[in-house]
Amino acid sequence: MKEQKYYIGIDLGGTLIKGGVVDHNANIILTKTIETQSNEGNEQVLKNILKLINCLIEESINFNINTFAGIGVGVPGVIDTERGLCLCSHNLHFNKYEIAKKIQAATNLEVKIINDANASTLAEYYFGAGKGCKNFAMLTLGTGIGGGAVIDGRLLLGNSSAGAEFGHSVICYNGKKCTCGRNGCLEQYASATALCNATKDAMNLNKQSKMWEVGNLKNITAKTAFDYSCVDETANMLVNSYIHYLATGITNIANVLRPEIIALGGGIAKQGNVLIEPLQKLVDNSIFASNQTPKVKIITAKLENSAGLVGAVCPFIKNKNY
Amino acid sequence: MKEQKYYIGIDLGGTLIKGGVVDHNANIILTKTIETQSNEGNEQVLKNILKLINCLIEESINFNINTFAGIGVGVPGVIDTERGLCLCSHNLHFNKYEIAKKIQAATNLEVKIINDANASTLAEYYFGAGKGCKNFAMLTLGTGIGGGAVIDGRLLLGNSSAGAEFGHSVICYNGKKCTCGRNGCLEQYASATALCNATKDAMNLNKQSKMWEVGNLKNITAKTAFDYSCVDETANMLVNSYIHYLATGITNIANVLRPEIIALGGGIAKQGNVLIEPLQKLVDNSIFASNQTPKVKIITAKLENSAGLVGAVCPFIKNKNY
Repeated sequence: MKEQKYYIGIDLGGTLIKGGVVDHNANIILTKTIETQSNEGNEQVLKNILKLINCLIEESINFNINTFAGIGVGVPGVIDTERGLCLCSHNLHFNKYEIAKKIQAATNLEVKIINDANASTLAEYYFGAGKGCKNFAMLTLGTGIGGGAVIDGRLLLGNSSAGAEFGHSVICYNGKKCTCGRNGCLEQYASATALCNATKDAMNLNKQSKMWEVGNLKNITAKTAFDYSCVDETANMLVNSYIHYLATGITNIANVLRPEIIALGGGIAKQGNVLIEPLQKLVDNSIFASNQTPKVKIITAKLENSAGLVGAVCPFIKNKNY
Repeated sequence: MKEQKYYIGIDLGGTLIKGGVVDHNANIILTKTIETQSNEGNEQVLKNILKLINCLIEESINFNINTFAGIGVGVPGVIDTERGLCLCSHNLHFNKYEIAKKIQAATNLEVKIINDANASTLAEYYFGAGKGCKNFAMLTLGTGIGGGAVIDGRLLLGNSSAGAEFGHSVICYNGKKCTCGRNGCLEQYASATALCNATKDAMNLNKQSKMWEVGNLKNITAKTAFDYSCVDETANMLVNSYIHYLATGITNIANVLRPEIIALGGGIAKQGNVLIEPLQKLVDNSIFASNQTPKVKIITAKLENSAGLVGAVCPFIKNKNY
């Protein structure tokens, strides 16, 4: 019998650092979370990561796990895999920070770093929604729209790993101003933030909407319109419009990458069939040469919050750098 | 000294079939053209291809070329490379047509087929504008917008080779009706046809435009607005607007694939710096995280009309199927 290998996965976020012990089959044995304290500087963030790693190692003894084959870290930023550098990260104020080297020096374990969106994409590709695909894309509908893709079995990186920015594709020429500087990006119409803002705007225009039952606008989330879509015309219109924008972005990606599956992650994806069924119909009808070419299946991501952890150790499990 | 290898390349178009003898370094030794006669059925098209091949073989003797290492055929349609099938082709009425097998049986030479847009992309990647890149995209601005891409050294195919449909990406939500059934596709704003139509519309609205010097609307092409852009306000406005639409489409591709180079082919690309310089500026300013990530260079394609022929034999030169 082959001995089971264990890895430490770190999902480094702007607010929280999530850590876990993951085995070679992507089972999560235990998890721990700690505050990032990114405002206190890079060295404090590093200290917190190391503290989390030590906690995980100590607690692993209870599971009879004494050795680790490596540490994988998912970082929200632009990564230079070869040199183990985080070139930049808006959330963490990293600037060419040698994070892999520093963790390696402190732990004496091999460390691999990967962009966090790519980590989630790989986790879903190998162990979740994309299992068995050759071509796969993942869209995370959150504050913005993140994503990643696998093409013919390999992660889509692009020059300096700067590709797969699915949220920053203009779908409305001269449309709403985006944080990236352009006008009309998908993110401004199909992120959770976009739906939340559209809901507030629509409620202000319609004081009779049943959505006002939630109290005031501070209680509005991207979920509100979905919650009221069966009983309120404004909510129904908001959901319908949201789905049409999202379908436009998904079909654009489908026509360029033509994956077998596009998985949706983030809170909104939890709406399930209310979202997926009309989306699938719109994409099926609008995809290029729909009669002669294979469909692209839209499904919800499967690993939810664990995708980041599992993805962080994928470079070890698959013995590749990304 | 290694003996030079020769291949026969066939660029199968809806109106004309172009054939050529190409050496292992992508030099074209001789070319011949014949009518496709696609309306007379698949077998007539096949007969014409075989006639062209025979002509090329006969004339090759004058160049002391007596043996060929294979025949490569670029086909405007969806290709099943493994089975040598053309699954469908709008221009040629092919429907699961076993074109590779039939040419092979008649010539006793190995035959490989490839989608024509992918052929041009490979030719530019290996021998033209994309030489030395890891990631490369190509856009052909013609009747529609065709294209292809190479990601990390490999052709972007997608499921059933249906990917890389760059022209069919919505940039104007609820915009102009596209031939693919959607509204607002890039092709409706940035193809040669789109510029030609926009020019006619603008001239109808402005009878004082200097562009009327060309006589009547039948003489209008995509070139007209460029020809008059320095002396006519309407023409200048048309060119400016065209470049902004094209830049939007190019930046969308750049944000998803982040190639080192995007090459532009087709008649409009011959405008050179008048087109490329403002395009490059717009893309540089709007690409995601422009300060932290590498630029995407926009250049004109280099092989022009020979890209189809050279690309058709690339599967032999590179000893790969695409």
